[in-house]
Amino acid sequence: MKQRIHFNEVVTRDGFQMEPEFVPTDSKVALINALSQCGYAKIEVTSFTSVKAIPMLRDAEEVMGRIERVPGVEYTVLVPNLRGAERAMESRPDEFNLVMSTSETHNLANLRMPREHSFAALRDVVARYAQQVPINVSLSACFGCPMEGDVPQAEVLRWAQRFADLGVRGLTICDTTGMAHPEQVARMCDVLQARFAHLQLTLHFHNTRGMGLANVLAAAQSGIDRFDGSLGGLGGCPYAPGASGNISSEDAIHMLDAMGYDTGIDLARLLPIARELPAIVGHTVPGQVAQSGMITDLHPAPPSVAELKKEFQ
Amino acid sequence: MKQRIHFNEVVTRDGFQMEPEFVPTDSKVALINALSQCGYAKIEVTSFTSVKAIPMLRDAEEVMGRIERVPGVEYTVLVPNLRGAERAMESRPDEFNLVMSTSETHNLANLRMPREHSFAALRDVVARYAQQVPINVSLSACFGCPMEGDVPQAEVLRWAQRFADLGVRGLTICDTTGMAHPEQVARMCDVLQARFAHLQLTLHFHNTRGMGLANVLAAAQSGIDRFDGSLGGLGGCPYAPGASGNISSEDAIHMLDAMGYDTGIDLARLLPIARELPAIVGHTVPGQVAQSGMITDLHPAPPSVAELKKEFQ
Repeated sequence: MKQRIHFNEVVTRDGFQMEPEFVPTDSKVALINALSQCGYAKIEVTSFTSVKAIPMLRDAEEVMGRIERVPGVEYTVLVPNLRGAERAMESRPDEFNLVMSTSETHNLANLRMPREHSFAALRDVVARYAQQVPINVSLSACFGCPMEGDVPQAEVLRWAQRFADLGVRGLTICDTTGMAHPEQVARMCDVLQARFAHLQLTLHFHNTRGMGLANVLAAAQSGIDRFDGSLGGLGGCPYAPGASGNISSEDAIHMLDAMGYDTGIDLARLLPIARELPAIVGHTVPGQVAQSGMITDLHPAPPSVAELKKEFQ
Repeated sequence: MKQRIHFNEVVTRDGFQMEPEFVPTDSKVALINALSQCGYAKIEVTSFTSVKAIPMLRDAEEVMGRIERVPGVEYTVLVPNLRGAERAMESRPDEFNLVMSTSETHNLANLRMPREHSFAALRDVVARYAQQVPINVSLSACFGCPMEGDVPQAEVLRWAQRFADLGVRGLTICDTTGMAHPEQVARMCDVLQARFAHLQLTLHFHNTRGMGLANVLAAAQSGIDRFDGSLGGLGGCPYAPGASGNISSEDAIHMLDAMGYDTGIDLARLLPIARELPAIVGHTVPGQVAQSGMITDLHPAPPSVAELKKEFQ
């Protein structure tokens, strides 16, 4: 028996975050409402970071206030610190997602502070809010840092342990710039599951070097049952220019589905939404199944086939 | 210990075949000569099909005559029938690659004859030439037909057995339109290796639905040690429009390399060649590692990191 797989859709947060053109609030709300009907376990709706840092998500309160929440779907939000947590709490999220990097350089480049400062800020959020809302921590650069290179597995486990000790509900282990390979993933997932069996463990992959779905496969084979994905494969990292970003949710779901995993997702409903994404962001997106169709979508034979069949009867 | 992996580069045949603009003979020869220095086990140079059917490869004789052959690299050519075989033989290839489909509809659409006719034509080639040159048979649509749908594994094995009985050296099992998923691949590879242990078994994947490298992973995990790949991911199938085609050689090699497989390929030499491909064909290509760099290619930290390090000292 294969484990049931739970998907967390991050397109409106991680996917939109770096887009140059503001996506109107109406479009965000409509997109999340459509995604809510597809069977996701979780949707990362937005971020309560400073409006100046990420202007794309300046409408966090309004989006959270306007979406129609579907029972069974968790609506999570990114929270950077206590101030963000206060703002976030008012919009009644189902989860806080806290983020820091396991690489010192990556944390400095992205969050503009040393890891210890990030940890202290996030520890305050956990201390203040863990009784009110489940907390997940996303650890970046767990399979390598684009500037430092290797990030030892022991270092990832060290940060994971520190948050586990604070009593968080879940950990997301992120391959932020697509540096993971399947063997590294299998090793990491085995150790994580042995050590943090009591936590929700999510894997977050990027397809920067084409290995995204191979890494999903390796993680699923190892028993992991929670994945982040971004519709259309939208979103990336500024430190890996010219490359594709997050794994495409629909491509990953399509693969797992074909392999007989129960993802709970209605692909026939999800693919038309993915096909609207280029119009929302104003450019093509890397996801492939929305273009090629599912493996069960057949093409008509060219007319020559019928003629040839007669000819060779 | 992991098996040594052998790569067959198909870009100048399978990759170029459907390109709308003729690639000059000089460019083809220069590309093959460059690829010959990278450590490939085999290069599929061209095809001796009718010039009318595939005008792109009308210079088959000239290309085969002009390339510099590197010891240790096999130069194979596609041969459709006895007439093609006669032409091909004069250019002293190291292997004939014969092709037919395991799907009747796909064979009619692509080769304009029933499978039995294709088999008879290819059987004649084997009978006439097997003593002079090693023969490989590529079976198309082994993981599904874009028009018929499922192609049962038993059907693939039946055609494989018929060619094995003729005494061919190798079989290439092709996922011609990217319909395979990793579990199907693992099952197929296990059975193939049990039944045809005496043959060279090659797997040929497409990345049409993003599963290309996941399928490579599944096949390698099952023990398969030969793969086709196309530089840049060039090439596709007319029955899966708008989708990416063959797996990118360099992306697959990069993944296997990172996992500790010995592919024999010098990626540092191969990637610059992949980066020239868009100029040769006049458009971008899907391969990702040529754009993003290898996982060992690091990026400089932004200047802010040094400032922040000082600030937080």
